[in-house]
Amino acid sequence: MSVSTAAAAPSVRAPLPVLGQDVTVPLVTGGEVAYAALDYAASAPALQRVWDDVAAYAPYYGSVHRGAGYLSQLSTDLFENARRTVAEFLDCRTGDQVVFTRSTTDSLNLLAAALPDGCEVFVFETEHHASLLPWGSPHAAGRRGSNARVTYLDAPRSPRQAVETLERALADRDPHGPALVCVTGASNVTGELWPVRELAAAAHAHGARIVLDAAQLAPHHPVSVRDLDVDWVAFSGHKLYAPFGSGVLAGRADWLREAGPYLAGGGASRTVTRRADGGVDVEWHEGAARHEAGSPNVIGAHAVASACKALTEAGFDALVAREKELIRVVREGLADVPEVRFLSLFGDDAPRVGVLSFVVEGWNGSHFAAALSAEYGIGVRDGLFCAHPLVRTLLGGDPGTRGECGAPGAAPGGKSFDAVRVSFGAGTPDEHVERFVRAVRELVRDGARWSYRTVDGRCVPDTSA
Amino acid sequence: MSVSTAAAAPSVRAPLPVLGQDVTVPLVTGGEVAYAALDYAASAPALQRVWDDVAAYAPYYGSVHRGAGYLSQLSTDLFENARRTVAEFLDCRTGDQVVFTRSTTDSLNLLAAALPDGCEVFVFETEHHASLLPWGSPHAAGRRGSNARVTYLDAPRSPRQAVETLERALADRDPHGPALVCVTGASNVTGELWPVRELAAAAHAHGARIVLDAAQLAPHHPVSVRDLDVDWVAFSGHKLYAPFGSGVLAGRADWLREAGPYLAGGGASRTVTRRADGGVDVEWHEGAARHEAGSPNVIGAHAVASACKALTEAGFDALVAREKELIRVVREGLADVPEVRFLSLFGDDAPRVGVLSFVVEGWNGSHFAAALSAEYGIGVRDGLFCAHPLVRTLLGGDPGTRGECGAPGAAPGGKSFDAVRVSFGAGTPDEHVERFVRAVRELVRDGARWSYRTVDGRCVPDTSA
Repeated sequence: MSVSTAAAAPSVRAPLPVLGQDVTVPLVTGGEVAYAALDYAASAPALQRVWDDVAAYAPYYGSVHRGAGYLSQLSTDLFENARRTVAEFLDCRTGDQVVFTRSTTDSLNLLAAALPDGCEVFVFETEHHASLLPWGSPHAAGRRGSNARVTYLDAPRSPRQAVETLERALADRDPHGPALVCVTGASNVTGELWPVRELAAAAHAHGARIVLDAAQLAPHHPVSVRDLDVDWVAFSGHKLYAPFGSGVLAGRADWLREAGPYLAGGGASRTVTRRADGGVDVEWHEGAARHEAGSPNVIGAHAVASACKALTEAGFDALVAREKELIRVVREGLADVPEVRFLSLFGDDAPRVGVLSFVVEGWNGSHFAAALSAEYGIGVRDGLFCAHPLVRTLLGGDPGTRGECGAPGAAPGGKSFDAVRVSFGAGTPDEHVERFVRAVRELVRDGARWSYRTVDGRCVPDTSA
Repeated sequence: MSVSTAAAAPSVRAPLPVLGQDVTVPLVTGGEVAYAALDYAASAPALQRVWDDVAAYAPYYGSVHRGAGYLSQLSTDLFENARRTVAEFLDCRTGDQVVFTRSTTDSLNLLAAALPDGCEVFVFETEHHASLLPWGSPHAAGRRGSNARVTYLDAPRSPRQAVETLERALADRDPHGPALVCVTGASNVTGELWPVRELAAAAHAHGARIVLDAAQLAPHHPVSVRDLDVDWVAFSGHKLYAPFGSGVLAGRADWLREAGPYLAGGGASRTVTRRADGGVDVEWHEGAARHEAGSPNVIGAHAVASACKALTEAGFDALVAREKELIRVVREGLADVPEVRFLSLFGDDAPRVGVLSFVVEGWNGSHFAAALSAEYGIGVRDGLFCAHPLVRTLLGGDPGTRGECGAPGAAPGGKSFDAVRVSFGAGTPDEHVERFVRAVRELVRDGARWSYRTVDGRCVPDTSA
């Protein structure tokens, strides 16, 4: 009888079980291969634990906050417990609110809709569009979003320069008006960690508040609202191994309490009365319910809470150590391939999460990504990653028009029009990353084995031959 | 060998399989009983078919519109197929758009944010708050929602009066400006069907458009955008046996195309460019993507599509016939109980879906609902059902303050402060409705067997004895 190690603390070397580990996909060159999901930065697979928790709850599903029945009460408790679990996961302060949204994008749009009048917003041009766009005039052309004055800050080339840039921008403003800084925790393009604590200190020193876009940080690193001293944090379930349509905005209650409700409807309204003059008076709820009109997505919230617990129990020390090792495999495995250039703001050795973008000399990103998929069963992402100004800065030009794919070198002058991003996390087996390194080396050395063409703007294997 | 009938058309008498059918709950009086979920109008259980489809897809989950990998392409196809399935389910016109939202509430808030400048909105005071509140001034106190001028129409007492009321209101308006009528298909309080086709004709005759709140209609009746001639329709997955956080707004593309994006972020933005003056230019997508920023909830959309297919395949003729039979069981089973008064705008015999609200002489609704739950394992809802003006009208007074629960008759003067709602649908076994009828008769005749007290505004069994 062998000695079981199942009860030991989670090993640095063991990925957490996720759905889809047994999924095989066809190769254009024949046969099938286990799918290597290396696009965690877009959507991570569900943790098996999350799926199990959802499946266990699903038969008990009932209306939240709305029913007198046993399952309604159970579901309401589950939903409110999910809120508490998320607050613990984020190490929230007493009095902080956790609002369930549909995603990080939704969370930041909610905060944008709650900005006080006259608020100034400061945001680096390097942000994901979800962090870049909700605040200001490009969006205010529509009816939603804020009417804040937005200052876009130039891309910094070091964490220190980021802090200095923000300091300079804040020094110019009227220190008595409301202001918000929005900053990413980890870049969705380079994976680089931003100096959140230092930026928060700078914001607060100038009377501004700060919201942390933790979409890419929370799945990889512990996030402490208290330690980082950020006013709000936003993240998405679908990047946190809980892809059931829920996201989170957590943080200070005051601006949220003073703002009009994010959605108008049931759940947000405490009492509605028809007036004698024919109009309608509404008394809105305070607290999270104010911004959660409509029946809550209790399965989504439960899934997020389950993921928070699973990651906490696995231990971020172990998860971070393992991810660092996977990053090392990629970087060292491709160090002697000069055609591959990784994109970086802060330098190749800057601390990062398991998100790396690169260009390959002589290839369009779309072509390279299509070959990784069709010939190796590896799923990555190509393009500009919803962070156009950042990727343009990193590519050193205007890659706005995606080139036609084709044989290697088809891009004029060998210039890359878009980048390739590989990203991984707690569920990634070593083999996926090792296969990726091998595939990149083979494609660069030998070229694609198949020919490709552009269909509806997407590079696909040419199967017409 | 017996002859199998499994391949026959779905029987009128067979409920569709749903999750939770085997769930038992404890009774305060001892023992356990199978839970009778009779709160479908709030949240319906998931169809087994929907769950199976979600479970089959979950291992193949990938990023939608965002990845080059096989599972991303599969997930993107699944998501866009879900859109087509919903369009077929609703019998949409060529050129209509299907936007996935989080719920009916979200859908109507989206449409409110897309109203053209100067739009007038006409809405009956009898609507659910989700249909009543997104349009006008109570909400415009916040930053979201429309700045439309809203006319609230008095509760009609017949379908014909509803049409006449709308006609009169529309006759007064400037026929050249944009206008929208918002109307429910089936009341979430009385279950009564509204004359949608006639209201649509009235709206169009006066140059107005109409949006149908089908949250309560779509789970029970076929909805044809084409036949009803409505401009938009909104419904929720969680009432359509698909509780995974998705809802739908479907209909005309023009107002949606001309409006600013509902959420600002990735997916909605086609290109983002930093300007020489430091600002940012955004070119937004057209089509559904314009209003679906952030990673789509592909599991939620897939679940909705699965439910649409399952209901279509079961056949609404059979579903409607069976539901009528269940309604008959309730009405006839309680016809000789004078203490029970059903709430109705259009009369007791008006066509309705399986949603019935009632008051019981001498009982608070919260007390009655608590006894149904604790002593019979029946989950219903009590309160004002997020339709305060309607319920006040139906109760003939101001029930705004919920009374303390207690022994039967504790409410002053035997007046009900709130109502009880029972609702059912495609998954409801006969036994649940039969148990409900028996329970109501027993409670009215014998009173509750247990004592109850109010805790945090909720009536619960007093277990302190």
